[in-house]
Amino acid sequence: MSAPPLPEGYAFRAVQKSDYTNGYIETLKVLTTTGDISEAQFHNLVQHWETHSHIYKARAITDASGKIVATGMLVVEKKLIHSCGSVGHIEDIAVAKDQQGKQLGRILIVSLTALARDAGCYKVILDCSEHNKPFYEKCGYKHESCAMVVRL
Amino acid sequence: MSAPPLPEGYAFRAVQKSDYTNGYIETLKVLTTTGDISEAQFHNLVQHWETHSHIYKARAITDASGKIVATGMLVVEKKLIHSCGSVGHIEDIAVAKDQQGKQLGRILIVSLTALARDAGCYKVILDCSEHNKPFYEKCGYKHESCAMVVRL
Repeated sequence: MSAPPLPEGYAFRAVQKSDYTNGYIETLKVLTTTGDISEAQFHNLVQHWETHSHIYKARAITDASGKIVATGMLVVEKKLIHSCGSVGHIEDIAVAKDQQGKQLGRILIVSLTALARDAGCYKVILDCSEHNKPFYEKCGYKHESCAMVVRL
Repeated sequence: MSAPPLPEGYAFRAVQKSDYTNGYIETLKVLTTTGDISEAQFHNLVQHWETHSHIYKARAITDASGKIVATGMLVVEKKLIHSCGSVGHIEDIAVAKDQQGKQLGRILIVSLTALARDAGCYKVILDCSEHNKPFYEKCGYKHESCAMVVRL
């Protein structure tokens, strides 16, 4: 499945340490609480992701000014099953509220799914609400099982 | 939630490189195809998990003879949301067919969930079939959302 084109001047790229005040944290607040995160904490986290870049692929879409307006994470898990196959986990898809209607969510999912294919994954999984199911179905995903949670 | 006791002589432990012919691969065949995996491939995979032991926690239950009869994986994902919180992903729970009725599945889930708590995770997620939902509910898990999949 191909992604719709990005709006003029927009770009899909890896999240960087310099994104601390560049809209990444603000965009994720659409999803849930982020808490107070210091610049040092942010640097350490992005460093962790970069050190393990074969596992963590934190990505963002920037607008024409270079500001982050959408985010998504792909985690590549190496398994034993399926001949030591890999599975991609898509996490924390967020689009800034003032950027709705530009298909940025769909571009994120198609782009992260392509990243998973490039990383050799045989499948990609993600969890979503019943409400968001039709969106993911349009992105080529199928509802196959139940996502179970325990909060600690 | 506390785990039922392991049967006499059984143990819960990390998967090791020496487990190539010790029931690990055989147990996972209960779930799906494993393909032909050479000893070198197995060593490389366990090495990858061990190198990233803060992310991958591959665990097994061994019987009184030391043979692996049940398996489970915990992947610890470091996020930005929830004050740079971590989420545990439980994957590839398998119990050898001749070991049913000993509550090994429940022991695995409770033990991996405790590992996630020790690793500082604020929640643990896993996917299961509608059929297996009651089992995970007994382990303290709740059905919260839809698990979506795309095969590549």
